[in-house]
Parts: sequence; C-alpha cells; structure tokens
Amino acid sequence: MSKLSHTDEAGAARMVDVTAKADTARTATATGRIAMNDAARTAIAEGSAAKGDVFAAARIAGIMAAKRTSEIIPLCHPLPLTGITLDLALDATGATATATVRTSGKTGVEMEALTAVSAALLTLYDMLKAVDKHMTIGDIHVSAKAGGKSGDWTA
Amino acid sequence: MSKLSHTDEAGAARMVDVTAKADTARTATATGRIAMNDAARTAIAEGSAAKGDVFAAARIAGIMAAKRTSEIIPLCHPLPLTGITLDLALDATGATATATVRTSGKTGVEMEALTAVSAALLTLYDMLKAVDKHMTIGDIHVSAKAGGKSGDWTA
Amino acid sequence: MSKLSHTDEAGAARMVDVTAKADTARTATATGRIAMNDAARTAIAEGSAAKGDVFAAARIAGIMAAKRTSEIIPLCHPLPLTGITLDLALDATGATATATVRTSGKTGVEMEALTAVSAALLTLYDMLKAVDKHMTIGDIHVSAKAGGKSGDWTA
Amino acid sequence: MSKLSHTDEAGAARMVDVTAKADTARTATATGRIAMNDAARTAIAEGSAAKGDVFAAARIAGIMAAKRTSEIIPLCHPLPLTGITLDLALDATGATATATVRTSGKTGVEMEALTAVSAALLTLYDMLKAVDKHMTIGDIHVSAKAGGKSGDWTA
Amino acid sequence: MSKLSHTDEAGAARMVDVTAKADTARTATATGRIAMNDAARTAIAEGSAAKGDVFAAARIAGIMAAKRTSEIIPLCHPLPLTGITLDLALDATGATATATVRTSGKTGVEMEALTAVSAALLTLYDMLKAVDKHMTIGDIHVSAKAGGKSGDWTA
Amino acid sequence: MSKLSHTDEAGAARMVDVTAKADTARTATATGRIAMNDAARTAIAEGSAAKGDVFAAARIAGIMAAKRTSEIIPLCHPLPLTGITLDLALDATGATATATVRTSGKTGVEMEALTAVSAALLTLYDMLKAVDKHMTIGDIHVSAKAGGKSGDWTA
Repeated sequence: MSKLSHTDEAGAARMVDVTAKADTARTATATGRIAMNDAARTAIAEGSAAKGDVFAAARIAGIMAAKRTSEIIPLCHPLPLTGITLDLALDATGATATATVRTSGKTGVEMEALTAVSAALLTLYDMLKAVDKHMTIGDIHVSAKAGGKSGDWTA
Repeated sequence: MSKLSHTDEAGAARMVDVTAKADTARTATATGRIAMNDAARTAIAEGSAAKGDVFAAARIAGIMAAKRTSEIIPLCHPLPLTGITLDLALDATGATATATVRTSGKTGVEMEALTAVSAALLTLYDMLKAVDKHMTIGDIHVSAKAGGKSGDWTA
Repeated sequence: MSKLSHTDEAGAARMVDVTAKADTARTATATGRIAMNDAARTAIAEGSAAKGDVFAAARIAGIMAAKRTSEIIPLCHPLPLTGITLDLALDATGATATATVRTSGKTGVEMEALTAVSAALLTLYDMLKAVDKHMTIGDIHVSAKAGGKSGDWTA
Repeated sequence: MSKLSHTDEAGAARMVDVTAKADTARTATATGRIAMNDAARTAIAEGSAAKGDVFAAARIAGIMAAKRTSEIIPLCHPLPLTGITLDLALDATGATATATVRTSGKTGVEMEALTAVSAALLTLYDMLKAVDKHMTIGDIHVSAKAGGKSGDWTA
Repeated sequence: MSKLSHTDEAGAARMVDVTAKADTARTATATGRIAMNDAARTAIAEGSAAKGDVFAAARIAGIMAAKRTSEIIPLCHPLPLTGITLDLALDATGATATATVRTSGKTGVEMEALTAVSAALLTLYDMLKAVDKHMTIGDIHVSAKAGGKSGDWTA
Repeated sequence: MSKLSHTDEAGAARMVDVTAKADTARTATATGRIAMNDAARTAIAEGSAAKGDVFAAARIAGIMAAKRTSEIIPLCHPLPLTGITLDLALDATGATATATVRTSGKTGVEMEALTAVSAALLTLYDMLKAVDKHMTIGDIHVSAKAGGKSGDWTA
C-alpha cells in the first residue's frame, strides 16, 4: 500500500526530514488556465496594447506567491528560490499561465511552481471579475521537472 | 467596451476606492477539485479512517489562506472575515473542496473563497504527490454569492 | 456534553461565523513569565541601566505578534486591534510579561493578548539563551477580560 | 515639552489606544523620488514603450506594501484600507512616486502612503541597480491629508 | 560578567554575525503543556475518536509557526528548516506538546522548536476556550539539542 | 544599450536565475536620514536619556524588515541573512540610520540594507509624527558593498 511521507504511522502530519539530502539544482514547470468570456479577453487585449497592468500584476503576484509557498502550504519545506519566470498567454477562450521555478536545495519545487500559477490565475480572476462573473480556473498541473532523485520528466 | 475597475484609464493598476460603500453582510462559496489516481485516493481514505491529518491539513491551509487573500492577490481589499468553512469530499476520481467565506464589509468575498479552495487543493497535492505525480487541479469557480449590490446568485 | 465551537458536528475545523455579532469595545489582559538564572537576570538589569534593548525588543515583538495573531492561530478571526500595551518586569527569579489588547470588534481578544505575551517571552529567551540554556516559560494565562457577551472578569 | 504618544511615561513603546475613536473617511497622499543616471532612465523609458513591467512591478509592490504597513511598522494600527493609487512619473533626473491611500478607520493613513512610496521606490532601485549602482532615494514626505481630527492640509 | 550576544556594547539590538559559521546538521526538541479542566479534556478525547481536527489544527499551527520563527522573534536568523515533527498527548490534567525541529544551518533551532510548541498550545487554548476559560500554558523549555558547537545535551 | 536583468526581452518581469552562482560571503551597508524639527529631536533625546524605546523600536523594525525584503520587493531573491546591525544617530537636524547586512548567498544584499534603513526611518516618522507633521525621509543610498563578482566599493 502507498505510504504518505507527510504523515507518520499514526496519521499525524509532519514536515519530512530532509536534513541529510544534498543541495542540488532543481527546476519545475507548472501550468494552468482560466476560461473567460469575450468581454474579459477583450479587456486584457486592449489593456495590453495600452500598457495595461493586468498581465504584469498577475505575473508579479505569481512570482511573489512562489516565494511564500512554504507559508501557504503547511508541510512544504522553505527553499531559497534562485529563479522564477511566469509567462501568460491570451488565447481564444481565456489565458494560460506557465511558471518555471528553480532552486539549489534539498527538495523539489513543484509546489512553488503550482502556487505561482494559482496566484497568477487568481489575480487575473480578481481583475476581470467585473466583466465576467463566471470564469473557471483549471488544468493546473506540473508539466516538467528536472533534478532530484526522481529524475527529469515532462508531462 | 468593458472597463476594468482595477486599472485606471492609462492601464495602471490600483486598488479601487470603496471608502463610501457601506459594510454589509456578504457570503461567497467557491469550489474546485483535484483529480488523482487510485493509490492517492486510497491513501486519503485509509488515513481518514486512521485519524490521518490529510484533510485536516488541507482544511486548515484553506482557512488560513483565506485570511491572507489580500496579501496574495495584489489588488484585493483587506477584509475582516467573520466566518470560513471548508469542506472536503473524496469521490471516485479525486476530491472536491468547497469553501464558504463570510464578512461584514465593503466588498465581496469571492476571492477569499477561491483562495481558500486553491490553498486546500494545493495542500492535498503536496501531501499526495509521493503517490501520484500527475494530479490535476481544476474546475475552480464561484458557486454562490450573497449580499452586496450585485445581488444573490447561485452558479 | 461540551461542544467545541471551532469544529462542526463531524469534527471538522472551521472559523466560527460571527457575521451577525455587533462590533463592541473589548479588552483582554494576559500574563506569563520566564524563569532564568542570576546571570541572565543580571544581563537584563545591566542592559536596562545602560540603555539596552532587551526589554524593548521583547516589547516590540509582543506588540507585533499580537497584530498577526490570526495568521499564527488557524481559527482566530482577524480583528482590527485598537490598542496594545506590553509591560515587562524583572524580579528575583525571572521576568513577567503582561499584555493588554483592545479592539472594537465582534470577538474577544484573549488570543491576541496570549500571543503577545508568548512572543515577548520567546524573545527574552532568545536574547538570554547564551547565558542560560535552561530557562522555562510558563504560567501563561488570561488575567482579565472586559466587553462581549461573557461579561467582565478578573482571574 | 512635547509628548510622544507611542511611548508611555517610562518611555516604553505601546500601540496607542484608539478604541473610542469613530471610524471616519481618511485620505493621505505621500510622495518621494529616486535619482538615477541616464542609462537607468533610458531603460525604463524603453521598457515602458515596449510593455515592460518596471513601473508595473513598482506600482504593485507599493500597493501590496501599503496593505502590510502595520506588519512593517511596529506601532502602527492595522487598518482596513479602502483604496490605493500609486502614480509613477519619469523626469529628467529620475522618477517620482506618489501614493494616495484611503480608509474608513480610527487613525490616519500617512504611514500607509509613506510605506507605499518607499516600497515602490525600493522596487525601482532593485530593477535598475544593474545599470546604476549609485541611485539615491529621497524627498519622501506626506503631501496632503484629509479626514480625522487634525483637519485637511496640503504640504 | 555575562555578555549578551544580541546586543552590542552600547546595548543596541543586533542580529549576530554568523556568516563565517559552517552549515551543520542541528536538531532541537522543545516541550510545553496546557492545563485544562475535564470538560476540555473530554472535548478533545471525543473529537479525536470522531476524527476531530483539534490536535490536527494545533499540529499544523505549530509546524507553520516554526517556519516563521524569524518573522516573530526579532533577532532570530532565518534558517532553512529541513524537518519538523509535533507530537501532542492528552493526559490526566491537560495536554503536552513536543516539537522536534531540524536544519542544516549556521545556528541552532531551539527558538524554532519553542515557537512551534507555543503556537500549538495557543491553538489548543483557542479551540478549547469555550469550554474552559481558565487554562494555563506552561513548562515550555528545550528538552534536547544536538549539533553545533555547544554539543549534544538532554534536559 | 543597457539591459535590465529583471525583465526579459519582451519586458516581462522575472526573478533572475542565479542557480549556478556560488554561495559567497557578502556585505552591504546602506544609509539614510530623516529631517525633523526641534520638538521631535528633543522628544527622542529625552526619551533616550529616560530609557525610551524610540530608537530601539526603529532598530528592531529595520532588522525585521531586512529579513522580509524578498516579500516586499517583488523580484528580490530570498536570502538567508547571517547578520544585521542598524545604527541610529541623532544630529542637529534629524537622525541618520545606517544598516549593515550580511549573507552567505548567491546575490548581494543591497536591497536588504536599503529596506532596513527605510523601515527604521518610517518607524521614527511614525513615532514622531505627533510632534512634527512635516518630516522628510531622504538620502537613502548604498554606502559600501563587499563580496560578489562586482567587487568591493565604498560610495
């Protein structure tokens, strides 16, 4: 049967002991999207053309949230992040966020990448909710990972 | 054309002025889910039976994140939240999170409910990623809202 | 049997709904102490005479922690604190911290006063641990409370 | 002789008791500037033209810092901010930041406006330090204030 | 006479310079307890049996607070914690919390362990205060320490 | 033309990738000052003599803010700070703050030193604003830097 590393035999939550693990370069990329109506898409598109801060605010929110991942997710190890990029792209039915997070640390950075994507999409939701009350955020997943003992992979 | 209240005419981000609005009772409910494989579902199910902290950790994470929404989402107003519940339910293909947030304040609490759901689902992802590396978080949306000038509605 | 307001019938944690409660003036006083050896007591006493920052640092730490109580304690309601004092007194076997916290809000401020006292005592511990490795923090309790439906009382 | 409200008769720091004060609409505007060389000014100017995030990042940083003022400044009261704007303007010798903060609360919002300006200017410094190692931030002051018992004024 | 490392010769607070120290594996264990009446003990005991979140919430609160120790205690160094466990045990007169914190860093983790214990006990207080208004938190101390130049010891 | 490392070719903000850089000892010193009237200067001077917490509060605020620099400034890398001192000096027209910050990390600590100085001066402003409504904070700059690839220098 599968064992959850974040709980002990009695089911009690813990932050797993990684003291003995080496600091190695690690990268994770996560992605997700927000579906919105035409009015919301137009509002971003026009804003971008006009130097609007919509994507910039979402990008900054995602980058800042990645740095606070271990404050938001109870059992995440604090990690000294060494690089974060967050790309946003508008398409026919909404927008996609893709975050790549790097560290030289003892654990992977999937949670940081997922947190960055979530915060960026929530920020888009916040800025656009006046023009679309029924947006949906979804398809948030890890798309690639490198470094660490589980090896490199791409979803 | 639609106007975004979070940016001014030049496209610059701002936190909208709501000083003159009255404090009224407001509620918002948001939901979302995480799809996972059988090993992950079994790990939760067994853990729950055995007093495991998996759902408890996710619930606490969601409640705590809701209270910090205005720190995570750049243009959100800080609000004195007056109630938060976060329900988690395991089903055939994963788990669903539903958060209801209340305030007596000048703006709605959709973002707080969405943030609670996001943090709870990210916490589940974190605790289960050792048994399923390919989970997806999705279908995050507001399902009901009450109070404020836009009136009550259910999605 | 006693009912815990912070958990529902199924035992799930929640932040209790206080939306309908009125904002009223509330005060709580908490106290606690740290027992230390003579070397530590002398270090404070001499420092105070010489403008040392030991008590000042502990006082500031307690005041700042009180303001962040709802971030530290999962089910605490965020409250707009309207006044905080934190007194520290050196005596024959250690030091006593007493915090009084005020708000005009929907719930009491015991937790804020207890958190202020705890943070102040932990700060003293931190600053003195080089001269006493075996200090003990204790006797932390609420000593007085005013406002709210449970009425005024002094321990 | 002048009395400092933030310290008691013995000189101990405290957060002043404002419980009995009424919640009233309050506004404060603060300004400040950063002096930089031509290379830095050109970098911003070109970036702006090309949709660069320099000013956007500084604006978001200022807005977010304003909301956290009471965490940064020890004796500041937490206030439910109801509006924040942050304007940035490039000129012949650098850039000027101007923040206007609003609340409906018991104390003024000068510190929030000053904190917003400081964080925005520090963010500009951070983003431009690769092209100018010798920038100076200065002339940070409150330029206007409205509401509260001390009345309206403009510097 | 003993010297406090956290203040300079003039008594001014500082964060001690540990730049030149090596990163080594360090562990600290702290403990503390909360005394409560029978009604409160019964509420926990029943809740546990029924999957209640009382201990889970306290455990999560302690783990999360440990990670934020350097934000709460002014002169604490930020450390990349590599492991945290927090045990809670109910007994005849209350409950005991024991936290073990690990890092690979330049300073010890006593303060992190003490902070975890304090936050866990405060969370129990918060969740139980409706059934016992007169609980006391005490006997908070470091019980064991390993690594670093002062060597291993157990209280 | 100069390139800004914090934005990519399209102008999008990012946290620069420093994964491959070595951890080296780094120090930065920043300074700044606040100009105030005689009443404010006297209030500090008398307070200091009388064990007042004015400078102590500002010092603690600066030290604590330095540790949170990467939360306040969007694109700053989180760094494990290994030492912080913050000196405050009263003179004929106001007070000067000087912060020295150390780390063993992959990037410099100018922003941490500048943030410490800014928070300390804002705290002085807050504590003195009751006696001088027209203070100005200025001349904030980096005065010395050591370590890292750009070499040592003093302004």
